[in-house]
Amino acid sequence: MSQTKPEQGLTNARILLDKRPVGWVDESCFLIEDCAEPSCGPQDVLVQAVWLSLDPYLRGRMNEGASYAPGFELGKPMVSRVVGRILQSKNPRFNEGDYVWGFLDWARRSVVSRGEGLHRIDPTLGRPSLAISALGMPGLTAWVGAIELGRPLPGDTVYISSAAGAVGQLAGQFAKRAGARVVGSAGSDEKVDFALAKCGFDAAFNYKTRNMDDALRELCPRGIDVYFDNVGGSTLEAALRHANVGARFPICGMISEYNAVDEPGIKGMQAMFAKRIVMTGLLVSDHLHKLPAYQARVAPWFRNGEMYFHEDIVQGLERAPPALIGMMKGEAIGKRLVQIVAE
Amino acid sequence: MSQTKPEQGLTNARILLDKRPVGWVDESCFLIEDCAEPSCGPQDVLVQAVWLSLDPYLRGRMNEGASYAPGFELGKPMVSRVVGRILQSKNPRFNEGDYVWGFLDWARRSVVSRGEGLHRIDPTLGRPSLAISALGMPGLTAWVGAIELGRPLPGDTVYISSAAGAVGQLAGQFAKRAGARVVGSAGSDEKVDFALAKCGFDAAFNYKTRNMDDALRELCPRGIDVYFDNVGGSTLEAALRHANVGARFPICGMISEYNAVDEPGIKGMQAMFAKRIVMTGLLVSDHLHKLPAYQARVAPWFRNGEMYFHEDIVQGLERAPPALIGMMKGEAIGKRLVQIVAE
Repeated sequence: MSQTKPEQGLTNARILLDKRPVGWVDESCFLIEDCAEPSCGPQDVLVQAVWLSLDPYLRGRMNEGASYAPGFELGKPMVSRVVGRILQSKNPRFNEGDYVWGFLDWARRSVVSRGEGLHRIDPTLGRPSLAISALGMPGLTAWVGAIELGRPLPGDTVYISSAAGAVGQLAGQFAKRAGARVVGSAGSDEKVDFALAKCGFDAAFNYKTRNMDDALRELCPRGIDVYFDNVGGSTLEAALRHANVGARFPICGMISEYNAVDEPGIKGMQAMFAKRIVMTGLLVSDHLHKLPAYQARVAPWFRNGEMYFHEDIVQGLERAPPALIGMMKGEAIGKRLVQIVAE
Repeated sequence: MSQTKPEQGLTNARILLDKRPVGWVDESCFLIEDCAEPSCGPQDVLVQAVWLSLDPYLRGRMNEGASYAPGFELGKPMVSRVVGRILQSKNPRFNEGDYVWGFLDWARRSVVSRGEGLHRIDPTLGRPSLAISALGMPGLTAWVGAIELGRPLPGDTVYISSAAGAVGQLAGQFAKRAGARVVGSAGSDEKVDFALAKCGFDAAFNYKTRNMDDALRELCPRGIDVYFDNVGGSTLEAALRHANVGARFPICGMISEYNAVDEPGIKGMQAMFAKRIVMTGLLVSDHLHKLPAYQARVAPWFRNGEMYFHEDIVQGLERAPPALIGMMKGEAIGKRLVQIVAE
């Protein structure tokens, strides 16, 4: 492709989708290219990317064909949520130096036509990266799933898979604030320690080294009232087996299946009516109108140190592809971000 | 077993669970025996069984171990909902000649200790058999599933599997009253004709002779807003594929899996979050407090001929086992009842 050839005088860099993955993503799916420094037309805004968010849903967008979000085009840049600083503004809504977030290309610098889709970040709420993490969509996902859909009562048992993930770490802490007993599972002892020590989970286990039924029987002795599903697959099946009558299952993702070429299907769905389970699919994009109220509610909890949020930071735009691949394979703890430049 | 030997002077008859089924039920699971005529102690009530209800959930109760309802005991009578006439009452709450319903043994006549668990049938509501069919639990299941959980809006597309079954025939008519377009599937052309001609479905197809995806694409051109699941399996998978964003899936049963020794699992559950589906398990026993209001609401619709309800009647207690087996295999249209004696 022509984009592969660096040309003289180009100083920007961006990352394109070069090949659609089949099964697991590998680095051959991406192409890093030098590109022309973007120039700012009337009403436009030039943004310096600072933080780039890596999220499991990006895997789906790399596929051919539409899912709940349109797929990325081959030969075009990858796009995700980015926090950036305004370098140049020809738009009265934005000032140089402002921090903003939006869905931007994976590029060092981007021009945003008329500033459309950019959101100013309120600096009083916290550090800028929170706008795409704890105070942004991952945080709102955790809130809506754990609280609004999960509806935990004091004393309920809330089980959270991917407990040490971007969303899971917050879902557990929100459920704790609602008075629930919170149990998590994760894929390494380090993640289990993180959930217990940093996020205040009451119990957690490593699903790679423990039998899931044994662990749930031991750690959820009164059964599961809320299962916050981030992974699907055999974890969802185990939660169906250990659910109580009337359990709520917010379904926020099924990362175990995103890379599966031949998915096995979920067994034990008869528990749905035998236990009158309510399973509710959640896409945070339906809930964006709640973001200001969410931020106002929870920002003080982070500022005051009442809640913990871990960012797993990878340095450098060029490391975004391996960092995304690694996250899909479970290597990140907390919210994975790529830092493009210093704040 | 001792019960197998008819003894002189015995005039009653009952049907016992003699063997637990593995996979499909067959007649060797049952034993018909003569038994002593029950005698009525103080406060007791002697009931002549008239109508006996055959329902898919009975299959689950024939298994070892608890499900949502306790299992039947080996060597003990089968139990289901029965409409009966009081032959003798030593209890002031019941009079001879009253029609009642309750969970009774599969027997011609039963004594009910203190009349506990018997419900008098209001003769003004309709014919007595309706108390265990359209005005009883199958009817309430259809109402709660199609209306309360399905929440169809005028113009929504409601898809109902087992459309010609006891519940499906009513679910479709209730959804029509709410202004929805109603599409059904069933396992024979005769059932499809029944759903269209008698129950007013807008469209219906035979899932045994048509490709489900083709049929749903053609008959639900605007997608599925409510899927009333009675069967699970590949039908549920197809509904997930054709569901609209925000679809409601009341899950009332999964008859396709009750006799399965090795269930395959439900594929395509990623649609849950991609389409923000709400899947809600329904057991009518949670909703019994609604029965009087339900009966008052819908009884006039049946009396006035605004709604249709088909009873598929098999004559004779001794034919209850083959009638249950046949129902599980799909041979019944509408609500299958066994008539024990004339009304």
